[in-house]
Amino acid sequence: MAFPVRCCALVGRFEDPRIAESVSALLPHLARRGVEVLVSEHNPPGVPGADVTRVADAELGARTDLLIAIGGDGTLLHAARLVARRAVPLLGVNRGRLGFLTDVMPQNMLQWVDAALAGELEADRRQLLTATLHQADGRHAQAFALNDVVMQKHDTGRTLDFDTRVNGRYVNTHTGDGIIVASATGSTAYALSCGGPIIEPHLEALVIAPICAHTLSDRPIVVSARSVIEIALHERPDTRANVICDGAILGSLVPGDRLETRTAGEHVTLLHPPAHDYYKILRSKLHWGRGSVER
Amino acid sequence: MAFPVRCCALVGRFEDPRIAESVSALLPHLARRGVEVLVSEHNPPGVPGADVTRVADAELGARTDLLIAIGGDGTLLHAARLVARRAVPLLGVNRGRLGFLTDVMPQNMLQWVDAALAGELEADRRQLLTATLHQADGRHAQAFALNDVVMQKHDTGRTLDFDTRVNGRYVNTHTGDGIIVASATGSTAYALSCGGPIIEPHLEALVIAPICAHTLSDRPIVVSARSVIEIALHERPDTRANVICDGAILGSLVPGDRLETRTAGEHVTLLHPPAHDYYKILRSKLHWGRGSVER
Amino acid sequence: MAFPVRCCALVGRFEDPRIAESVSALLPHLARRGVEVLVSEHNPPGVPGADVTRVADAELGARTDLLIAIGGDGTLLHAARLVARRAVPLLGVNRGRLGFLTDVMPQNMLQWVDAALAGELEADRRQLLTATLHQADGRHAQAFALNDVVMQKHDTGRTLDFDTRVNGRYVNTHTGDGIIVASATGSTAYALSCGGPIIEPHLEALVIAPICAHTLSDRPIVVSARSVIEIALHERPDTRANVICDGAILGSLVPGDRLETRTAGEHVTLLHPPAHDYYKILRSKLHWGRGSVER
Amino acid sequence: MAFPVRCCALVGRFEDPRIAESVSALLPHLARRGVEVLVSEHNPPGVPGADVTRVADAELGARTDLLIAIGGDGTLLHAARLVARRAVPLLGVNRGRLGFLTDVMPQNMLQWVDAALAGELEADRRQLLTATLHQADGRHAQAFALNDVVMQKHDTGRTLDFDTRVNGRYVNTHTGDGIIVASATGSTAYALSCGGPIIEPHLEALVIAPICAHTLSDRPIVVSARSVIEIALHERPDTRANVICDGAILGSLVPGDRLETRTAGEHVTLLHPPAHDYYKILRSKLHWGRGSVER
Repeated sequence: MAFPVRCCALVGRFEDPRIAESVSALLPHLARRGVEVLVSEHNPPGVPGADVTRVADAELGARTDLLIAIGGDGTLLHAARLVARRAVPLLGVNRGRLGFLTDVMPQNMLQWVDAALAGELEADRRQLLTATLHQADGRHAQAFALNDVVMQKHDTGRTLDFDTRVNGRYVNTHTGDGIIVASATGSTAYALSCGGPIIEPHLEALVIAPICAHTLSDRPIVVSARSVIEIALHERPDTRANVICDGAILGSLVPGDRLETRTAGEHVTLLHPPAHDYYKILRSKLHWGRGSVER
Repeated sequence: MAFPVRCCALVGRFEDPRIAESVSALLPHLARRGVEVLVSEHNPPGVPGADVTRVADAELGARTDLLIAIGGDGTLLHAARLVARRAVPLLGVNRGRLGFLTDVMPQNMLQWVDAALAGELEADRRQLLTATLHQADGRHAQAFALNDVVMQKHDTGRTLDFDTRVNGRYVNTHTGDGIIVASATGSTAYALSCGGPIIEPHLEALVIAPICAHTLSDRPIVVSARSVIEIALHERPDTRANVICDGAILGSLVPGDRLETRTAGEHVTLLHPPAHDYYKILRSKLHWGRGSVER
Repeated sequence: MAFPVRCCALVGRFEDPRIAESVSALLPHLARRGVEVLVSEHNPPGVPGADVTRVADAELGARTDLLIAIGGDGTLLHAARLVARRAVPLLGVNRGRLGFLTDVMPQNMLQWVDAALAGELEADRRQLLTATLHQADGRHAQAFALNDVVMQKHDTGRTLDFDTRVNGRYVNTHTGDGIIVASATGSTAYALSCGGPIIEPHLEALVIAPICAHTLSDRPIVVSARSVIEIALHERPDTRANVICDGAILGSLVPGDRLETRTAGEHVTLLHPPAHDYYKILRSKLHWGRGSVER
Repeated sequence: MAFPVRCCALVGRFEDPRIAESVSALLPHLARRGVEVLVSEHNPPGVPGADVTRVADAELGARTDLLIAIGGDGTLLHAARLVARRAVPLLGVNRGRLGFLTDVMPQNMLQWVDAALAGELEADRRQLLTATLHQADGRHAQAFALNDVVMQKHDTGRTLDFDTRVNGRYVNTHTGDGIIVASATGSTAYALSCGGPIIEPHLEALVIAPICAHTLSDRPIVVSARSVIEIALHERPDTRANVICDGAILGSLVPGDRLETRTAGEHVTLLHPPAHDYYKILRSKLHWGRGSVER
């Protein structure tokens, strides 16, 4: 990250009134500091404002020094993909309540944006996953994921039978709705809803969590982040699955295809306010310590 | 059920070799007893044999005295729909391992078929559910379910926000992959994979089980079988769900629609071999009592 | 319940300052209405005040027209045992946050006490359980429970092997820390922490929930409230369990003994403020509907 | 491990007939190879045979070249404590069914004992945990654990309120029956019954798993094996917990005390037959891949 910051990208659903409010405070603030503001050309003309530079997504990642994501964790996941191959740090501004990834509150936004511009915020490197979908006909598709790679049934009425392998070694044959390979960062997202554990964010580990497995003992497995995880469907009539990286569909998986997930060489850099405390965010998000069920 | 039985319907995937084997033993056995055999006209010509009567599904339910389903529990669920409005009893022959609903083993098939023809088997009445999909434009669709009515996300990348009501009273706003309303019979099917309890089959109760809920305290609720359960999606861009009854898609649910599930007036009658023991089946299916994890 | 109410029993940990504060508001209020106040003779002399009548626990249940429990759900469970054989209704005043059973908030206490004295509150009958510990030597011990009967390992290092039977029929052999038989009322207490479902309070059902079972498929079972549930330990060296009813120890269970739990003929009557809504309490206690984990 | 092996220790419950049978085959086999056999002096005189050398437990660990544990995983855990400070490898012979730690089957015992004597078996190093109980009065107690360190309520009727810290940082305040700190090795033991994940055995990670937590979102956390985990009880009347290492009681924890768990410098070395496959053992122990619940 170059200092002083000359160029800053903004990502968010600018049509959301709460986000528009934050943006309308942020734009003049950045202008006063002489920072050029980039936004994706996919926004409607004139949104979020007149004085922003509209660029293609590829150019956005290439040109910006800093990316500010305004919204929920989903917005930050989208932003992370734009800068996955770059060293651009991300600052996540939440739209009202704390996120795991977006931990700047709106009322403190300008203060921490200034600190980010000055290079004074704590940098928190998180490993990315890379998912490769090897199709039986030789084609393949690839995507990054910060949180998780999900293989899930396509037609909701039909369960999937599939095999998992770790580093080439057969693990299990599963029957159920699908499976999640989550990073430590993603362990508190979808995988948590599927019975996975919380993994502290800098542990070099992945969790493989079955989704609604038939076999009740088919429990999440935590493996080294250096593992290669392969998933393949059994041959069944009309069986088909979706592969989804951080909520975006990568493609379809059919019998004969193979989905391979591993840690990418790339990472993203999150910027945190100085008092950032992972366990405090957990306590807040999970309503811990309030004796929710008193016997 | 009229005795002596004159007419028997056969349901199954006759192209499966294991099922074909059972059928080829069963057909001459029924012929020797002078029982006419009906099959659905949806089977390929000549399948499962030359001397069977091919009829429309509606006629099959109307004409037969007994229905024999050969296969897994999924086959019996399909068969149950064919006779849901009739008093026709069902005998479930499993293709190799015990099912919750198909508890006649192939090696004992002829013995228990004879007992069924003679009216000597235990009759086990199970309540059906009825799901009604009230669409915003006034149309509606309706189906029976023996196991469960499922509302589930359609595009796998997008979670659903929805409300549940029981007897008109607001219960909860859920975020997740969907929700299951299961009968006691269906409690050991999909709902069990979603954290639901086992409900003994004759308890007049339903279980409402969220699928992969975001909120970890969003737990299954057991309510009276006399309850009316309503589900409605929140207004979100592009949100859409499937409604599935016993694995068959009933239709799509969009914001403004309402899914209503209640116990039907109709029921199905399962026939069981004399030594039928619900808990024995549970122990077998769930690998109980084998000390699977020894500390 | 006789009207007008002449006599009211107070139960609580009067040494707790928050409870003492409520009591010091309540005593003159009851005095002004000419209501005699009974407390257990187990309280220290002069506690909670000079003008209360101190009686034996047995007499307290026999003489009072109304029982006010001030504290948490644990206090109300204790109070319920005092009046289990009587028709005395219970009003539960919470000491700060809502309880499942104690749903009068301190700021509204005097209003709803007056309504209770006038017989204007909604009466909510809840079935009691009765636990009988049949010891091998012929002795037996018995207790009521509103929430649950728990059989749990005594020495924490040693797991238990035990059998369960429902209405004389063998269900399962369990290995683990113990088992809970909970009423619908108790389904949101300890059983919920052990993976049990929420059961709506007037469904005539019990839940049998294993505690930390070795076998992961050893899931909670919901059975009719008319069931008799028997638990017996396997013969093992030094094996011993505690039997606990609503948190109070009934006795020890050793191999050869038998614990029998069934619904009692007796019930308790809870009094609720008019706006009482079971699902609202659930939403509050379980932090529902706040999107606690946002993907 | 010195070769050729001159001295071998045997550990097991020799009074169990199945174990006695294995021992009576093993003793002459070792005698023919000129290997001296050590057993603990805690065995009854003459058990398991006339020609074994009876020594104190401390001497057993110091003198032996190899330890053979015959029984279940519990026997191997006990054996591991005897050699925790030594480089003595362990061979675990199961008494009938596969264990996670005891993976030599009786029918192959002599073959793999010979391979162990010859130094031909695969050595599998597993980290030990060390638990230190710092009491308020300055005393402390310490023990090793291969599987887990458990803090659990002492009197079964009373739940515990306690805090956890990781590397000095406050994590959470828990209410429940206790908490487990398990190694990767121990993740498939007690922690699995409490909702913890499976952790592959060589991942340098620990899991902190609450036992029957009141708060349903109080989920297991996976942290680095380099972490120091501290547990302290809140001040409550009569509160007291047991601390248990691999099933053996280390001592009592009361408010003011502090339990500290970390990875020990020591490790144990398990010997495995050549075809040892961790996932195969998982599949066998957890009844995976058998479609236990067929929808």
